[in-house]
Amino acid sequence: MSAAYRSAPVYLGIDLGGTNIKSGVVDGDGCSLSSVSLETEADHGPEVGLERLADAGNRAVQASGLSWDRIAAVGLGSPGTMDLEEGLLLEPPNLHGWNNLPIRRLLSDRLKKPTVLQNDANAAAYGEYWVGAGKGARSLAMFTLGTGIGCGIVVDGLIIQGCHSHGAECGHIIIQMENGRQCSCGAFGHLEAYASATALVKRACEALQLENSPSLLGQIDPHELSSRAIGKAAEAGDHLARRLMRETAHYLAVGAVCVMHTIDPDLVLFGGGMIAAGQAFLDDIRRDIRAMAFPVPAARTRIEYARLGGNAGFIGAAGCARRAYGPKPQ
Amino acid sequence: MSAAYRSAPVYLGIDLGGTNIKSGVVDGDGCSLSSVSLETEADHGPEVGLERLADAGNRAVQASGLSWDRIAAVGLGSPGTMDLEEGLLLEPPNLHGWNNLPIRRLLSDRLKKPTVLQNDANAAAYGEYWVGAGKGARSLAMFTLGTGIGCGIVVDGLIIQGCHSHGAECGHIIIQMENGRQCSCGAFGHLEAYASATALVKRACEALQLENSPSLLGQIDPHELSSRAIGKAAEAGDHLARRLMRETAHYLAVGAVCVMHTIDPDLVLFGGGMIAAGQAFLDDIRRDIRAMAFPVPAARTRIEYARLGGNAGFIGAAGCARRAYGPKPQ
Repeated sequence: MSAAYRSAPVYLGIDLGGTNIKSGVVDGDGCSLSSVSLETEADHGPEVGLERLADAGNRAVQASGLSWDRIAAVGLGSPGTMDLEEGLLLEPPNLHGWNNLPIRRLLSDRLKKPTVLQNDANAAAYGEYWVGAGKGARSLAMFTLGTGIGCGIVVDGLIIQGCHSHGAECGHIIIQMENGRQCSCGAFGHLEAYASATALVKRACEALQLENSPSLLGQIDPHELSSRAIGKAAEAGDHLARRLMRETAHYLAVGAVCVMHTIDPDLVLFGGGMIAAGQAFLDDIRRDIRAMAFPVPAARTRIEYARLGGNAGFIGAAGCARRAYGPKPQ
Repeated sequence: MSAAYRSAPVYLGIDLGGTNIKSGVVDGDGCSLSSVSLETEADHGPEVGLERLADAGNRAVQASGLSWDRIAAVGLGSPGTMDLEEGLLLEPPNLHGWNNLPIRRLLSDRLKKPTVLQNDANAAAYGEYWVGAGKGARSLAMFTLGTGIGCGIVVDGLIIQGCHSHGAECGHIIIQMENGRQCSCGAFGHLEAYASATALVKRACEALQLENSPSLLGQIDPHELSSRAIGKAAEAGDHLARRLMRETAHYLAVGAVCVMHTIDPDLVLFGGGMIAAGQAFLDDIRRDIRAMAFPVPAARTRIEYARLGGNAGFIGAAGCARRAYGPKPQ
C-alpha cells in the first residue's frame, strides 16, 4: 500500500431507510472499506434518528480501521421527497416526524464534515453506475423494486435529480390512465401500483379470492404472503404464481420502455428485493421490452440486474460526496 | 453595428420536413437574420432533396445579406429516426428512399461547411431553450403537436438525445397499456395515439359515427375535418368539439406528468399546429397536470406554449451548429 493511497481521501456513505441504516467507508475508486447496518428506530423521532445516523457513521469509520480525519466528506441517501438544494427532507414515508427536517446541515454539524444529501434511489443508481453493473455505461436508468419502486437516472455521469428534486420518480409514471390501480401515493395508474412487491402481493390476494384453481399460494397465510414466496412458487411451477410474475415482468417492461423512449440510456437495471426471482424473471422483462421498444433501442439497450445489492445506496451516497468534495477530474 | 459584430460567426439552420424545408441564418445570440421556406419535393428522392436543402441554405444566406464565408457551420434538423453520431437518417417517415442516407456528410460536402445533424423535435426544443419560451430555464421538455407528437428535452443546456439517438421520443411513451389505441408506429397505447392532431381527428370521426347528438363537426366533410376545425368548433361552444379538446388536454397532461416524474424540468412547453386552440386548451392541460403531478412539481413547474412557431426548428438547428463549432463558453 503506497503512502499516497494511505493519505488519499475516502468518503462515508450512509443509506437511511425506514427500518435500517446502512453505512460504509468507500475509497476514491469505489471500494468499500467497511459496511455496517443498524436499526433506524424511526419511531423515536428525528433526534434519536440523527443520533443513530451519527452512530452508523462512527461504526463504519471504526470498522474501516481509518481515523475520522481521512474522511473527506459524507454522503447521505434518504427515502421520500426532499429539497436537495436546501438539504431538507420534505415528507419521508416511514419516518414520521421527520418532515421538513434540514437533515444535511444537522448531520454535517454532528459529524463535522461537508455532507451531501441525495435521494436513496438516485444514490443506488449512482453506486451501480460508478462501480456496479453500470460501470462503463454512458447512461443508465435503474429501478429498485421493493415496497415501492424507486428509480435513479444517470446521464453522462450526471444524476438527473431534477429542478425540484423530483427527477427519476419513475415509480410514479402513469402506465394505465383509464381505470388504473391506485398507487400508495394516492394517485391512479402508476407503475408502482402494478409492479412493486406490495402490488404483486395485492394482485395475488385478489387472484386467490377470485379464482378457484389450486395454487401453492392458497396454502400460505395471507398475512405471510410475500413477493419472495410468490417468486418461489413460480419457480416451483405454480401456475398462478407464474402468471403473476409474468404480468409483473410485463408491467416493468412497460415502465422501462417509457423511460427508454424518454432518456434512451444504454443500460436499464433492476435492483431491490424482487430480483431474487432470478433469471427467468429478467428474461421475461427483456422479452417484453424488446417487443415494445423502438427497434434500435430494443436491439441495443442492455437490460440487467443490479450487482451491488443492499450496498448500492451507501456506495452511491459516498460517490456523491466524492463528486462534490473530492478531487476534480483532470 | 460594431466591427466585431460584422465579423462574428453566424450559423445556417435548416429544418427538413416531409412537406417543406425552412431555413435561416442565425447569429450567435440566436437572432434570425433571414427565414425562407420551400417545398421539399420529397417524392423525387434524396438526390433532388439534397439539392433542395442546398437551395434552401443558399436562399437563406442570400436573404441575410451576408456572404457564405461568414457562415461558421450548418445545423440540420430532420424528422424520423436517425443515428446522430454517424449523421445517418434511418427511416424518415414521408421521405421515402432516404433510408440510411449519410445526410450530414452529403450536405456538408455540398455546402462545404461543418454540419451537425439533430432530430427536428430536439432542435425545436433547443431553439425554444436558447431564445424562445425556454430562455432562462434550467431544463425543459417540449412537446410538438402535429401529425405526430415530437418531443425534445434539454437539461442544463444538454440535449437528451440518448445513447442510440432515441432520446425524447415521448410521443411513444405508453400511457394506456391495456386496450390502448394503435399508434402510427404500429404499437399500442402511446401518447401520440391519443393526443396528436391525427388522433384527435380520428377520435372525432369515431364520436360522430357513434353519437347522434348534433355537432358543428357533423357539418364538415369528414375528409376536411382537421384539428384546427375541431379547435374552432370548441371555441364556438360546440359540445362534442369541447369534449374532444378537453380529452386531448387530459392525455397531454398524462404525458407531461410522465416526463415531469422522469426529468423534473422547470418548464414544459407545447408547440406545433395544435396550440392554435389557444388559452383555454393550455389552461385545461395545466389544470390536469396540477391535479396529477406530485405536489412540488405541480406547484412549481411552468407549463407554457412555445413562442418561436415554425422557426423553432431552424433556429435550434443553428444553435446546435453553434454549440458544436462556435466559440466555447468562457
